[in-house]
Amino acid sequence: MKKIAVLTSGGDAPGMNAAIRAVVRTGLDKGLSVMGIQRGFSGLINGEIFEMDRRSVADIIHRGGTILRTARSEEFRTEAGQKKGVAILNAFGIDGLVVIGGDGSFHGGQALSKYGIKMVGIPGTIDNDIAYTDCTIGFDTAVNTVLDAINKLRDTSTSHERVSIVEVMGRNCGDIALYAGLAGGAESIIVPEKGYDINLLCKTILEGKLRGKMHNLIIVAEGVGGANEIASKIEEVTGIGARATILGHIQRGGSPTANDRILASRLGYRAVELLLEGKSARVVGVKDGKIIDEDIDEALAIKRSFDEKLYSIAEALSY
Amino acid sequence: MKKIAVLTSGGDAPGMNAAIRAVVRTGLDKGLSVMGIQRGFSGLINGEIFEMDRRSVADIIHRGGTILRTARSEEFRTEAGQKKGVAILNAFGIDGLVVIGGDGSFHGGQALSKYGIKMVGIPGTIDNDIAYTDCTIGFDTAVNTVLDAINKLRDTSTSHERVSIVEVMGRNCGDIALYAGLAGGAESIIVPEKGYDINLLCKTILEGKLRGKMHNLIIVAEGVGGANEIASKIEEVTGIGARATILGHIQRGGSPTANDRILASRLGYRAVELLLEGKSARVVGVKDGKIIDEDIDEALAIKRSFDEKLYSIAEALSY
Amino acid sequence: MKKIAVLTSGGDAPGMNAAIRAVVRTGLDKGLSVMGIQRGFSGLINGEIFEMDRRSVADIIHRGGTILRTARSEEFRTEAGQKKGVAILNAFGIDGLVVIGGDGSFHGGQALSKYGIKMVGIPGTIDNDIAYTDCTIGFDTAVNTVLDAINKLRDTSTSHERVSIVEVMGRNCGDIALYAGLAGGAESIIVPEKGYDINLLCKTILEGKLRGKMHNLIIVAEGVGGANEIASKIEEVTGIGARATILGHIQRGGSPTANDRILASRLGYRAVELLLEGKSARVVGVKDGKIIDEDIDEALAIKRSFDEKLYSIAEALSY
Amino acid sequence: MKKIAVLTSGGDAPGMNAAIRAVVRTGLDKGLSVMGIQRGFSGLINGEIFEMDRRSVADIIHRGGTILRTARSEEFRTEAGQKKGVAILNAFGIDGLVVIGGDGSFHGGQALSKYGIKMVGIPGTIDNDIAYTDCTIGFDTAVNTVLDAINKLRDTSTSHERVSIVEVMGRNCGDIALYAGLAGGAESIIVPEKGYDINLLCKTILEGKLRGKMHNLIIVAEGVGGANEIASKIEEVTGIGARATILGHIQRGGSPTANDRILASRLGYRAVELLLEGKSARVVGVKDGKIIDEDIDEALAIKRSFDEKLYSIAEALSY
Repeated sequence: MKKIAVLTSGGDAPGMNAAIRAVVRTGLDKGLSVMGIQRGFSGLINGEIFEMDRRSVADIIHRGGTILRTARSEEFRTEAGQKKGVAILNAFGIDGLVVIGGDGSFHGGQALSKYGIKMVGIPGTIDNDIAYTDCTIGFDTAVNTVLDAINKLRDTSTSHERVSIVEVMGRNCGDIALYAGLAGGAESIIVPEKGYDINLLCKTILEGKLRGKMHNLIIVAEGVGGANEIASKIEEVTGIGARATILGHIQRGGSPTANDRILASRLGYRAVELLLEGKSARVVGVKDGKIIDEDIDEALAIKRSFDEKLYSIAEALSY
Repeated sequence: MKKIAVLTSGGDAPGMNAAIRAVVRTGLDKGLSVMGIQRGFSGLINGEIFEMDRRSVADIIHRGGTILRTARSEEFRTEAGQKKGVAILNAFGIDGLVVIGGDGSFHGGQALSKYGIKMVGIPGTIDNDIAYTDCTIGFDTAVNTVLDAINKLRDTSTSHERVSIVEVMGRNCGDIALYAGLAGGAESIIVPEKGYDINLLCKTILEGKLRGKMHNLIIVAEGVGGANEIASKIEEVTGIGARATILGHIQRGGSPTANDRILASRLGYRAVELLLEGKSARVVGVKDGKIIDEDIDEALAIKRSFDEKLYSIAEALSY
Repeated sequence: MKKIAVLTSGGDAPGMNAAIRAVVRTGLDKGLSVMGIQRGFSGLINGEIFEMDRRSVADIIHRGGTILRTARSEEFRTEAGQKKGVAILNAFGIDGLVVIGGDGSFHGGQALSKYGIKMVGIPGTIDNDIAYTDCTIGFDTAVNTVLDAINKLRDTSTSHERVSIVEVMGRNCGDIALYAGLAGGAESIIVPEKGYDINLLCKTILEGKLRGKMHNLIIVAEGVGGANEIASKIEEVTGIGARATILGHIQRGGSPTANDRILASRLGYRAVELLLEGKSARVVGVKDGKIIDEDIDEALAIKRSFDEKLYSIAEALSY
Repeated sequence: MKKIAVLTSGGDAPGMNAAIRAVVRTGLDKGLSVMGIQRGFSGLINGEIFEMDRRSVADIIHRGGTILRTARSEEFRTEAGQKKGVAILNAFGIDGLVVIGGDGSFHGGQALSKYGIKMVGIPGTIDNDIAYTDCTIGFDTAVNTVLDAINKLRDTSTSHERVSIVEVMGRNCGDIALYAGLAGGAESIIVPEKGYDINLLCKTILEGKLRGKMHNLIIVAEGVGGANEIASKIEEVTGIGARATILGHIQRGGSPTANDRILASRLGYRAVELLLEGKSARVVGVKDGKIIDEDIDEALAIKRSFDEKLYSIAEALSY
């Protein structure tokens, strides 16, 4: 192993830059050359590859987004595209590849590894929807960003004694909703893993009003959606004003939290170690507080399990 | 003047609590009794009135929203409703009233003053759409909140090399868009006072791309609207990905900035001074850096003028 | 178990309010009466005890500090004081006590448990210096607060091309320094667990300058101290300007992060469960990502181990 | 006028980058060449001068510090040094110079203008200690940074029922203390323009305690200093715990507020306009809400006046 490369792919997540920095500096620290590939697999196919040194990753640990850019590539989904990627990597003399991204990006890396490319994946997505790891890079920041938005909405919702419905990201995973909902003291948390009953929701709101609640905050995960419809229904049934807010892409941005930077640093460091150990087709992550690595095929086959206990704690504390 | 009251009305704005605190503490400092009226004119009609002391407004200067709550009242738009309000104020022996809110709230206060109630208005709205004053309470905080959101969107929009269209509040006033757009380094600012040309917008984006711009941020004021349609059109014409974000109610919340707290303190203090000077039907504000007061009829008749110079500076600096 | 009480003791930490909220609401949810004790063991001795309901803990999850206040008590360190505490608890019919605080507070709880009081401890301190748990409530917030300060210092230190030395809290534990240093991209991290060599430090700075580093950030843990002396020495040896900043008590405050609120909610919930299970003299915590509980005597006997691996990652990534 | 240059000098301030951006882009927009001078007058003497284009100032509007760096120069205080600066400007064919900094920097610019260099100054300093302008670039950000620190200190000070003494920057000017103190609801504000009486301070604290105040926040301006001594004295006289915090250099950093970015944009734009109008030895600023310019000799001769009215409002609202 003499030369490695790193790319980011799929949706960006805060902390990706910290992971890039860790890969580059660890690689250099261990005597490797490190190349950066721009715009994910699309840039790989186009040969957008350049050498990185320590200064290339100076002053980026605190920045959201990814300095390597990211893009989606239709061409890379085809066998022809993947073979082109392999050819480019060989042309540049790259022995090992680090892929930072979500499960879509891992599938891309998996494809390359089938053609003999040594590859390690680092989970970077705000959605926390990758089952083999307790936590993905960007999740902690996204939860805190949602928390900040909730705080602001609570001010205005309390003043108007309205119900606030906030739709947050997470695709089919309810974790952003659950964590931000619990931490934000939301009255109800609606996630795809549990579903909801609009009648029960309205009953809870009316009971809360009787007990003197000045506001009612409902977090809805993207995987359930329909924040506007829920607001209308609540207003109709309870007679209490309700407003929906769909938080959108601000959840992807922002300076990463300490946690995301540290996780990214650990995982980036471990990814390079694995390549140096001659491993391939592995993904790194964190399990029970420990940095782990897992075979990529097995990792992608694991089903996510929802934290039922945490959900029930959130429920018990909410009213 | 022995007993005054204070209420907040209309949409809430960060800094309203600082204004309430200033009214209450200045009143007490000058030997008055101070009553709080809950839920604006609606609460006035219902007699939701309570005595306030120094501790009632302790630890609120940094809080968004309004501890007095706010509400809209259909009844108060009628003559009967207004007379009821007058009767309640008389029943409680209230000699002077401070109304904190936007122009709708000022019209309510104006109505009461026709019936002989001594009244002073304080401009509290994030929209900055009140012509006689350079600045309303809440505007500075809202602009900074939008700025924070823009920063986050820029991260993700840069990473994906997309166009971001952000729709911000302000009703028919483009000030939030203009100030946040200039401060956020937006490539284009679309305000109702100026309109826009979709072709020119697309041309600017394509030219920017040629010059190496990695992102394109467009701020659209609520008074123009249509962020989603603009995004679709841009994507269609330029072939560059575009995403719309409608910021929504988070713009109303949040801890007020230093500026908003100081402005609120100054205006609250001045409002009580005016009541003690025997004035009525006045509104306070800031003009050319000085605290001023103005007859409410004249104030409401002034037409807003848009800051053309600032808009042209924003344009010159944007590309 | 019919009536429980909760107190906070020692230095305050962000997230203590979230823990109080969790204890109160879990207790009520499970049919218990819940009492709040003000000012820690000092307030216990003085009988500053009041009944809490769901509203007592409304709107506090996002607040720093502790609504129950905290204090140090010399009297409670004596046998007489402890017996008085027991008598008061009995007088109020309190069957179980939750103590939120650091190891000093745990010793207080331990003393009460010797007299038969059923007691569970929750680790609340920014210092992260309690060995049996991976994480204490307040640590994550403190690290992020330091990170925010570091960001600000970096701006000015870069502009002046100076060395910044930042002294952070943590008593004899270097964790705040290590985590904030790694996450903040500090060039050097000085912790009591490792010590430092001033000559090596100066050499690193001079080498960094040669490689084009525009700033140099050194984090010093409280347990080492001497930030001002280090600054003088660096200036003298390297000829590069150096400024020391001692962050102080701002590290104890601020709205808790999502992580601290969730950890506090989990631990508060678990503490009440333990009391209901008839357990006593236990402390709750988190180990390998799981909520655990431990005998208080054993827990207090465990020696902290420093995360050598994380420290070496920080070193590898820093230059 | 064909070629202008810009430099930053003295202590850095948030918003300096926004001013640099405005100077560069306005210059280019009006057909000028624009050069950047690094490290202030020191860099001028050393010929650290490079051409800037639109991309040189991309993505900097939100960054604290100054991309042009800043430094102090002993040599430039001498006539020989100044003549060298003039020679360098002539050698580079620079017709006009924009100096961003505080009054020390203005004296440097003034010296150059005596030798015939066309020069305009922009006030950039957090201290707000320049008399001819109502506001300097960086002041609003610094006040909000102090406010954020105050919020955090209040949490912990309230929990411990202690007195917090916070020493803030501002050299001989009490504005940061006054604005942050009023906005932060400080119980006492100590500024060099007014002085203080330690006995009165202690009396106020004791009276506040009697009225149920849970915390006491005292802001001390740098120009008075002695926060630690004040804390000791208070503890001795009142018997209430007191803690001093000296905020230090974090006050210079951080992303500039909207206000500072807009002020910087306006002033940068105006500075270039003045050069194009053939003016020299002018300084720009804001007076009564309007952008103004003033002869540099006259401007530097104006004495600051303290805002007595605002100080008395702060006093009236504080207890």
